[in-house]
Amino acid sequence: MSYMYNFVMRSAQKKRKSYMPGPRLSKRAISMPFSPIRRLSPLADQARQKGIHVFHLNIGQPDIETPREMLKAIAAYREKVLSYGPSGGLLELRLAVADYYRRVGIDVHLDNVWITTGGSEAILFAMMAVCDPGEEILVFEPFYTNYNGLATMANVRLVPLTTKVENGFHLPSQRQIEAKISRKTRAILINTPNNPTGTVLTEEEMYILYKVCKKHALFLLSDEVYREFVYDGGVQTSALSLPEIQDRVIVLDSISKRFSACGARIGCIINRNRKTMDEIIKFNQARLCPPTLEQVGAIAAYKNYDRYIKPVIVEYEHRRNFLFDGLKNMKGVYGHKPEGAFYTVLRLPVKDADRFCSWLLSDFQYDGKTVMLAPANGFYSSPAKGTSEVRIAYVLKEDDLRSALVVLGAALQEFKG
Amino acid sequence: MSYMYNFVMRSAQKKRKSYMPGPRLSKRAISMPFSPIRRLSPLADQARQKGIHVFHLNIGQPDIETPREMLKAIAAYREKVLSYGPSGGLLELRLAVADYYRRVGIDVHLDNVWITTGGSEAILFAMMAVCDPGEEILVFEPFYTNYNGLATMANVRLVPLTTKVENGFHLPSQRQIEAKISRKTRAILINTPNNPTGTVLTEEEMYILYKVCKKHALFLLSDEVYREFVYDGGVQTSALSLPEIQDRVIVLDSISKRFSACGARIGCIINRNRKTMDEIIKFNQARLCPPTLEQVGAIAAYKNYDRYIKPVIVEYEHRRNFLFDGLKNMKGVYGHKPEGAFYTVLRLPVKDADRFCSWLLSDFQYDGKTVMLAPANGFYSSPAKGTSEVRIAYVLKEDDLRSALVVLGAALQEFKG
Repeated sequence: MSYMYNFVMRSAQKKRKSYMPGPRLSKRAISMPFSPIRRLSPLADQARQKGIHVFHLNIGQPDIETPREMLKAIAAYREKVLSYGPSGGLLELRLAVADYYRRVGIDVHLDNVWITTGGSEAILFAMMAVCDPGEEILVFEPFYTNYNGLATMANVRLVPLTTKVENGFHLPSQRQIEAKISRKTRAILINTPNNPTGTVLTEEEMYILYKVCKKHALFLLSDEVYREFVYDGGVQTSALSLPEIQDRVIVLDSISKRFSACGARIGCIINRNRKTMDEIIKFNQARLCPPTLEQVGAIAAYKNYDRYIKPVIVEYEHRRNFLFDGLKNMKGVYGHKPEGAFYTVLRLPVKDADRFCSWLLSDFQYDGKTVMLAPANGFYSSPAKGTSEVRIAYVLKEDDLRSALVVLGAALQEFKG
Repeated sequence: MSYMYNFVMRSAQKKRKSYMPGPRLSKRAISMPFSPIRRLSPLADQARQKGIHVFHLNIGQPDIETPREMLKAIAAYREKVLSYGPSGGLLELRLAVADYYRRVGIDVHLDNVWITTGGSEAILFAMMAVCDPGEEILVFEPFYTNYNGLATMANVRLVPLTTKVENGFHLPSQRQIEAKISRKTRAILINTPNNPTGTVLTEEEMYILYKVCKKHALFLLSDEVYREFVYDGGVQTSALSLPEIQDRVIVLDSISKRFSACGARIGCIINRNRKTMDEIIKFNQARLCPPTLEQVGAIAAYKNYDRYIKPVIVEYEHRRNFLFDGLKNMKGVYGHKPEGAFYTVLRLPVKDADRFCSWLLSDFQYDGKTVMLAPANGFYSSPAKGTSEVRIAYVLKEDDLRSALVVLGAALQEFKG
């Protein structure tokens, strides 16, 4: 048997056909976008190889320490078998999440929480739960770029409504929002505080969204992973505080930014409609369970939330102020001081921000240093938008931010775009 | 501002409309299947509440210890920030995976490996990469039940071709396979060694699949997570050993069973086509990265592969033999001694295995004990197949298996179905 098999296999290998048509990949795979945040990484690698120090203002990876209690709890894990957990997440973590919500003033119960593998999976499951292929979700651009990739995976069409830096990226009017709603629209997707703009939606804006979702029977998917990062004494208005439409509010959340634990991949879906939660658990079941150890860590992190979060918020507010003080004196740089998160979208005095960001890595250095920024056009889905804009993540400590600003200022003077 | 907002919100809450049409969930959400393995869990909970000990033969959760080196490596993690890793997985883990493949005689390079969040995600990404909504994948039933859920998420249609216990669940003829191929067929999905049947595809069967995939330009998606669990001195033939069609072979793998680390959620995709891998990485990017700590653990596990795996294989082979010795004397129970994995599908002398499995949990006990089995109909997608069959996972140690067999024998005598 084995002999004949080997013989046939070998002769097959020898016979080199001049043409063998291979199967094509799906349209969905081909149309998946590359991450605009990570696209320039090869250029950054090259810069580093030349010995140039690269300040990473391109990616939302904070340098803030993860709560020690979280890593300690994981190190203290003593089960001998790292076994499957429940599909909806460990009971203790779901309780910890519900408890966290109540502490920030939002009434959430155990039954309203499913744990997901990162906020990304929460977004994907929500998109799949509300849309069949070809259906639409309204989204305000610039938006978190991975919405594009996740929507492509789910064959959902994102319909963008553009917001502008001149308005601090706040929402268009109710009339303009309603003009974008078609028979295929199933949901509005928001992110407050916002990545990439740092904008926090006001109560009035949330009220407009409530009216539109109610009137047009739309789901409101609300990505609130930056919930606590609101400055100048402001607070975020959660979609969970809107009346009447709680059957259709699906909140997407994550510990990645809250606890500077991006690599943990622990998120959650919050919804108060029992029937909807009963359907969503089937998505969770299909991929078995979220990672067990990081859930154990997340329980410990949530227990230490109050103590941990306060200095972190103070630190980010300080960095924002420091960044904007520095930008004030930079000629031709236009932006709004964001109310929250740790990003801002700036308009630079360059025609092609994409070229500028590449140039920073490939052809520029100042005193052996350069900065990496994310060209903002990747955060728009309308073509030719944001071409002069960049997203800056102020995730570095003051000293590094200071150096990065000096480098950026010098680069803008030198760049001929 | 806040006053007006609160006033409007409160009056909205008071106004109770007689009818407010809510948005409907997607057809894909509604048509998602509940896990047949976990469906009877509430009955098992009730049995336990009555003080009855439940032997879990329903789920592939081994009681074998996870390699200590894996948990030690995680406990020794000393980074202060649990940060994002690369979307395709940690470089060291991709190298460890390639090294593992070479050690088991399969030539795999770093560039052929993307790390995924469990084997589940590898399956989902592969389905999405080869199929657009409405396209088809050929699959041999009974099959791993989560294929159904993952295909529904991706809007892919699974076309089943039935295999039979009388043939040890081996493949139908080439002619029968080709008869199921339509213009919409994009791939054949296999699982060898198989869950739920324990069947290992022979070299001849793999050769037939090679011919069919070549002739019809189909992808071969090969789920090989049970690769090393082959008994009686046999070996698995990997799809990666087939000639000529390596551009279209996508192997789906996981550490869950290999290292008894189901809760780690670390899997991978293996493919030797650079262009295909360049497209698949975009799915990885959309969800950022797999969990970091479990990847650190997986590196340690792979380093200790040879030492760890041998006694585990011996143990499973022993359990299989022990189980089948016990079943021999059980009247009316029909099955084939499986060549691999740690499952088998048995035909029982009952008309409705689903009812029997429920009854075991709700109405039966023997000396304070009962067993939980998975009704096999959930592993078929054709209706009314496998109605007298159950899947048994022999994941318990000999003493527990012995007690479980006594309980099962008594139950079959008592059940009036």
